[in-house]
Amino acid sequence: MQIAVLTFDGFNELDSFVASGILNRMKSRGWAAHITSPSPQVTSMNGVTITRQKPLEFAAEADAVLLGSGMLTREIARDDALLSRIRLDPRRQLIGAQCSGTLLLAKLGLIGDLPACTDLTTRPWVIEAGVKVVDRPFIAHGNVATAGGCLASQYLAAWVIARGGSPEDAAEALHYVAPVGEKEACVERAMAAVMPYLKDGEPAHRRASAPAVAPR
Amino acid sequence: MQIAVLTFDGFNELDSFVASGILNRMKSRGWAAHITSPSPQVTSMNGVTITRQKPLEFAAEADAVLLGSGMLTREIARDDALLSRIRLDPRRQLIGAQCSGTLLLAKLGLIGDLPACTDLTTRPWVIEAGVKVVDRPFIAHGNVATAGGCLASQYLAAWVIARGGSPEDAAEALHYVAPVGEKEACVERAMAAVMPYLKDGEPAHRRASAPAVAPR
Repeated sequence: MQIAVLTFDGFNELDSFVASGILNRMKSRGWAAHITSPSPQVTSMNGVTITRQKPLEFAAEADAVLLGSGMLTREIARDDALLSRIRLDPRRQLIGAQCSGTLLLAKLGLIGDLPACTDLTTRPWVIEAGVKVVDRPFIAHGNVATAGGCLASQYLAAWVIARGGSPEDAAEALHYVAPVGEKEACVERAMAAVMPYLKDGEPAHRRASAPAVAPR
Repeated sequence: MQIAVLTFDGFNELDSFVASGILNRMKSRGWAAHITSPSPQVTSMNGVTITRQKPLEFAAEADAVLLGSGMLTREIARDDALLSRIRLDPRRQLIGAQCSGTLLLAKLGLIGDLPACTDLTTRPWVIEAGVKVVDRPFIAHGNVATAGGCLASQYLAAWVIARGGSPEDAAEALHYVAPVGEKEACVERAMAAVMPYLKDGEPAHRRASAPAVAPR
């Protein structure tokens, strides 16, 4: 699995790096999560400049795409030229959004009428964009998932691993990153959040999944 | 509070960015957490190159210093020239280490005979360095704290905020980053981990603290 973690100027470090860090625990299995950005360098909401690993167009060819969150998401959601560079296909890709990333997912026509998660700050803007927001950390409909609250990014990563690999792989990756002495409880909590949204634990690319909604 | 988050080549993204992201929730109060590195750019264990915000020497003047973890910590622990650039004073600074950062703290003479936390991979090397390792996510002795397991970095950040600000400030920062629908439980868990190590909730700079151990 090659995974694009979409990361824009003003990005929230927790959203991009908690997800990519956990996903890269699958490195020995040939997986890679790549920081994927519109420009060669992007600067976080706290002034950290990072060099992208893949250009935005990589999203079209990735097996999974996660849309991170940040301070400038409302501006990005209005930037049609930038949005047109993000080509996603929920019939063959796993797609997840974190916090204000849900707003971008809505603008890309990938949420439709289905309930979604977001953070408390973005909530009014996502509702304004016509999305039904639920007060939960994680929800998935077919191949499209949303998460709310920075640290819910671990649930998004767990879902991608469970779908593209297996629930056991997800539990193993979570176990590694969990606090010492709290590992079992931490893994159980995360797996309880994502398990209801796994149909059968079969790898995503071997399953003929219907898109969550038709892209508009 | 100006905080140095020590970040070396091969660094674990979760350790540096979960802590700095949570600490920077105090930005409106004049706090700043800075990615602090020996070279102008450092590259993570998963190939993400970032530009430092402060040079390593900044650690000497920071109010708090967190030592992150990474793939190359054993090499760094043997690099006396590099270690000599890190000047810490537990009498006036809050000092925390995450996972393999505990090994650096031991080499800097800041752990001594006191029990400390680290991750499961680093554990044998930390024990080899003469440290008593405890199977817990967080422990503090005076102004020196250690945490084990990537996501225990939230406890390290909470401790710094509780000590330099107040427990209420720490709870507020944690509440923001916690998953939606799990915020209260998440804050309670983190505060339960750090509260036993807060003497009276008074800001650190107004408290005359004895050093945890004498630097050697």
